[in-house]
Parts: sequence; structure tokens; C-alpha cells
Amino acid sequence: MIATPHESAPLTPVTVLGLGPMGRALASAFLNARQPVTVWNRTPGKAGDLPDRGAVVVDSVQAAVRAGEVIIVCLIDYDAVRATLEDSRADWTNRRLINLTSGEPAQARQMSQWASARGIDYLDGAILTPTPTIGTPAAAVLLSGSHDVYESVRETMNAVGSTVTHLGDDPGQASAYEVALLDIFATSVNGIVHAFALASAEGIEPERFAALATGIGGLLPEMITRFAQQIRADHYPGDRSTIASAASGITHVINTATSHGIDAAMLTAAKAVIDRAVADGYGSEGLARLTTVLHKEATGTGTA
Amino acid sequence: MIATPHESAPLTPVTVLGLGPMGRALASAFLNARQPVTVWNRTPGKAGDLPDRGAVVVDSVQAAVRAGEVIIVCLIDYDAVRATLEDSRADWTNRRLINLTSGEPAQARQMSQWASARGIDYLDGAILTPTPTIGTPAAAVLLSGSHDVYESVRETMNAVGSTVTHLGDDPGQASAYEVALLDIFATSVNGIVHAFALASAEGIEPERFAALATGIGGLLPEMITRFAQQIRADHYPGDRSTIASAASGITHVINTATSHGIDAAMLTAAKAVIDRAVADGYGSEGLARLTTVLHKEATGTGTA
Repeated sequence: MIATPHESAPLTPVTVLGLGPMGRALASAFLNARQPVTVWNRTPGKAGDLPDRGAVVVDSVQAAVRAGEVIIVCLIDYDAVRATLEDSRADWTNRRLINLTSGEPAQARQMSQWASARGIDYLDGAILTPTPTIGTPAAAVLLSGSHDVYESVRETMNAVGSTVTHLGDDPGQASAYEVALLDIFATSVNGIVHAFALASAEGIEPERFAALATGIGGLLPEMITRFAQQIRADHYPGDRSTIASAASGITHVINTATSHGIDAAMLTAAKAVIDRAVADGYGSEGLARLTTVLHKEATGTGTA
Repeated sequence: MIATPHESAPLTPVTVLGLGPMGRALASAFLNARQPVTVWNRTPGKAGDLPDRGAVVVDSVQAAVRAGEVIIVCLIDYDAVRATLEDSRADWTNRRLINLTSGEPAQARQMSQWASARGIDYLDGAILTPTPTIGTPAAAVLLSGSHDVYESVRETMNAVGSTVTHLGDDPGQASAYEVALLDIFATSVNGIVHAFALASAEGIEPERFAALATGIGGLLPEMITRFAQQIRADHYPGDRSTIASAASGITHVINTATSHGIDAAMLTAAKAVIDRAVADGYGSEGLARLTTVLHKEATGTGTA
């Protein structure tokens, strides 16, 4: 058998704390990369086939941290991370902690300070792709925090996916990207279900509507790239579509939804921002201008 | 010179009422197809290069309707259409009226009744693609109303684009599709600008954020197709992501936006629907379940 790169690389013992679907997927990816893997979960019986595939299941965080050099934590939220680690009395000497739990940039920065106060090397991370991608080239993982810590785990983390990106020293950056991407995703998904409700109320078959609606996804990448250029230049030309015409269009959607008894609060909230932009004199500008109108306070709060 | 299909086809005189950007694009497409074109606009001086290219500019709707057999109207809204046509004292004998003005399904149905009461053959339409696509294969136009009227204008309307689709006899269907598609588009665009505002507040460069965000557009078509299947089956499996996890994710976005003084009303409205779904016992189901929760009234209003 020919040695793979993973087999010839030094084998770093990895611990995974938390065996939800994502924790299990991470442990599985490290096993596939032939790393020694130890797993822990607060409630037992969540390890699935990991023990059969070579993972060691331990019943305390203390034992789990002792067994690994790279400790991955992936729990329900940051409160759970803090509670789990504070209760553990683990010895973190020569350990690195990588927190892949979903949360907010402020929580990531607080967690980094917590680790720093205890002398624990810490990276915060965000997983941008669903569990089936983990361990495949399709996985996308962001890490932020100390460059030196990142360099020390880089090779180990390659097992998770081929796109593990370090964003710099601010431990909040990975969460910041995650939250901003989730912003687009959550908003779009809520718009999609709303459109299906509207289509249904108008007697449109879901498959017929979907056949036309799938084209909209294709319009967004070009728009996102164009908006980035306009935001960089702080110049928002209205040559393609204007905020004033968006106000008219969204009113048609709100009226139609309301006529069918469909909740229109999300669209009404969007229209309020558009109306504020028109009142501020931006009606003839392009939609990327709304980025500045969304800041409720006029100055000072826009930069971290 | 070899005769093109357009030259060998019977030349139907076409009139375009309204010379905004879309009206001008439509007139241009008919000129390119070698149709005789007459144009009218309430305020003069909007015809651009159309007269040089052979369009006849007239100063009354009455004259414009007299000159054309197919009358295209594309104005700012349905009120303007009604006012323009009611004032005109035009003779509609052997004329067909195609209204491509953006509006709501109820407005389209009212307009169709207005036309029917005056013996005017009427189709309502919706243009789904921007002005530069008009007259090219990329144009997508929906028409709804009488099948016989559609058959009588089909060849003429081919000049607008290769995808002119007739949706059936209900004159509101074209607007219904337009409004539901606009629902997704408007919501997504508002989510995109919100995410850029959030990214900016977190110190993320717009271009770096855009490079990751463009991938989200690619996720939507598969999701839209899957949601259509789930809505058809009235079965919403939570195997990929659940409403409960969406509630957690959207809370992270709201908290982060609020911490930076960024308007979060749209997300708060979306979360209210998600919370209602959780309260209704749907937390472990998939997001397409929200289509049923969005209907404020429990029964009866969901079908046209």
C-alpha cells in the first residue's frame, strides 16, 4: 500500500468535544485522515460508529483534553462552551483550543479573552458548509486568531477540508463572516418561502413557480460583486435600477400578500428602509446605497 | 439580400404607449423586427433615436391606437394606464391591447374587466428581465388572458424575445408570477445590502466579503426546487436544517446588527414567523414549513 500524505505526516492527536451532527462529521474527517481521535459528549450514546472506526470515547472533558493536542469544540452555543470548559479542571499545557461553535463576533472575542486569561492557545472558527461536505474538498472553514496558533494546527485542520482559511489575528473575524453570510442566506430563504406562499395563494403550482424562480439565484453573484465595487467607491449609480423603483415594486408585493392574508412584516420592514432612503434624497440611486441608510445612527457606529 | 423570417412574415403595425426605458426598448425591438412602429408618450421628447430608425411619433393616444393593430402599453402603474386609455376616445375596433405595465394580479384582472366592458381584446403581461435583454434571446416575458388573443399576437410578440410564455386565461397570472418573483428578488437584495452593512461594521472589506458571498446564490436554485417538492407533498423533513436552528442563527445576526446600530427590523420580522412556527410545534421541521405559517388566517384565504 502506498503511503498517503496523511500517513506520512506526523499524527497529531485530536479531541472533539460535542457530538452533534457537525461534531460527529469533524471526528469522522480526522479519523479518515488517520489522526488519533478522542471524543466526548455531555450526554453519552452520541458517538455513532466513531468507536468502531477507532475513536476513543471518554466520559470527562478533563480526560478528553488530556488525550488530544488539538481540541475541537463544537457545541450548541458559546454559553455551553464556556460552561463545559470551566467545569472541566483540564490541564491545557501544550494544548490548542479551536472553537467551531456558531455564534457572534463579540462572543468569539470574549471566548478568546477567556482562553488568554488561562494561557490557552485559542482559535475561533466558522464552518460555512453543511455537514456532508466535512472532510471533502467542498468544505469551507474560516479560522481567526493568533497566526502562530494557526500555523501550529494548519496541517491537522487540512483533514476537515481543502479550504481552511485564516482571516487574521482578530478572533471575531470568522464569526463576523459567518454572521454576515447567514444574513444573506436567512433573508433569502425567508423570501423564498414567502414567495411560495404568495404563489400558492395566486393558484400557481409550486413546480411551475420554482422553474422560473431558480433563475434568480443566478442573478445574485453579479449583483453582490457590483455592490462591493460601489460600496468601495461610495458611489451608487442608478443606471440599472433605482431605490424609487424598488419602493414601487415592493409595494406591489406587500399589497398582494396582504390581500391574501399572508404576513408581510418582513417586506414592510424592508420598505421602511427604502422609504427612509427616498426621504434622504437617494431615490434615483442604486440599491447598494441602502447599506449606508441601514445604519440607524448617523456617524461613528459603522466601523468596528 | 436574403429575406429574413421577419421580412417574410406579415408586417403587423405595432404601437407603443409609454417611452420610459422599457417602452423604448420594446419599440426598438419591434423596429429591429421590421414591424411598422408608432410611439406615444405623455410628455414629448422621450423617443430618443426611435424616429431616426423609422418610428412614427404621434401626439395623441387616439392617433397612436389608430396607427397600430397591436397596442403595447408600458407606463408607470395601472392608474396611469387607466387614465391614459379612458381619456383617449380611441377606436379599438380590430385592435389588441397588451399591457406590460408592472402591477398586481388584482389590478390586472380589473384592467381586463375594463377592457372587456369596452369590447377590447386584452392581454396582461409581465417582463421578467431588464431592458438590455429586450429583443434578445435572454428576454423573458409572460402573458396571460384569452388564448385566442394570445394566438393572434404571438408572431408579433416574438420580436420582444424568444421566451414569451402564455400562462392561460386568468389575466392576473402574469402579474402573480411577477410579484412572487419580485418577492424573492427584493428580499434577497435587501438581505445583501444588510449583510454588507454588517460586514463593514465588523471591519470586513467589501470585496473579501463578496468573494465568499457570491457562493450563496449558487445554493438557492437547488433549495427552491426542493422546497417546491416539499410543498407539493405537504411534507417538510428537517434532515438538512431545521426551523429551530434557523431561529438560533437569525438571533446571532440580529444581535450583531443591533450591537452596531444597524436596522434589524427585517430580520426581527423573519424571526417572528420562525418563532411562531416553533410555537406551533414545527421546530424540528424544515424551512419550507414556513410557507404554511405565513398565512395569518388558518383556513380559506390560501387559494385564489
